[in-house]
Amino acid sequence: MKIDHIAIAVNNVESAAKEYQQALGIDNVEFETIESEGVKIAIIPLDNGRIELMEPTNDSSPIKKFLEKRGEGLHHMALETDNIEGEVKRMQGCGIQFLGKIRSGSAGTKVTFIHPKSLCGVLAELCSHPK
Amino acid sequence: MKIDHIAIAVNNVESAAKEYQQALGIDNVEFETIESEGVKIAIIPLDNGRIELMEPTNDSSPIKKFLEKRGEGLHHMALETDNIEGEVKRMQGCGIQFLGKIRSGSAGTKVTFIHPKSLCGVLAELCSHPK
Repeated sequence: MKIDHIAIAVNNVESAAKEYQQALGIDNVEFETIESEGVKIAIIPLDNGRIELMEPTNDSSPIKKFLEKRGEGLHHMALETDNIEGEVKRMQGCGIQFLGKIRSGSAGTKVTFIHPKSLCGVLAELCSHPK
Repeated sequence: MKIDHIAIAVNNVESAAKEYQQALGIDNVEFETIESEGVKIAIIPLDNGRIELMEPTNDSSPIKKFLEKRGEGLHHMALETDNIEGEVKRMQGCGIQFLGKIRSGSAGTKVTFIHPKSLCGVLAELCSHPK
């Protein structure tokens, strides 16, 4: 199990990316819109993972609701496993609750989300990258 | 720049550690009390970093205030650099604001914190490990 990325809700992904790039001294950034999740993301690469800045693309996006309630800030952590199906099965056997089934994320990844009530208030993405 | 750890505020660090260990399938955990920061932490090791669960040890702990205001959840992210003095100097040159000077953390680390207003609402620890 590895830390894959840390996801942060922001009001404006372009200006947030500039702030993060300047603060962390990082030149490269990639932008991607994931319509199915209602977000535009900026991916800030670090040596062992990524920071993802997320701006809602529509009013029904969960990120929009998060921003209205809590303002900008840490939204979820993402953990990577080689075997997402096996991990989900093992976790369900321990009573861990999930938000939705395993589904396709960006760039061929498979993703699902662990309910915050199973991890002390923390929303956690579980993901597998294509081999 | 690397992700060092993800820090989570919890009400009870022993029971939270058990939940995380069971959910993530991780046997080992270490506990440590950092009196200067007013926290007891559980360190959950991952392949490329750590999750740190933090319980306040006194009423003036910032973690106590966070829990009262927001409840359990993601508290800060920690980024590791080989050269904390150089990074702080570079960041201050960009207008990044810090919460306190570079100080000693646990196990010989040097730490400081970037003010959330410099990173879109995210509290970020900057740390260097002893070589």
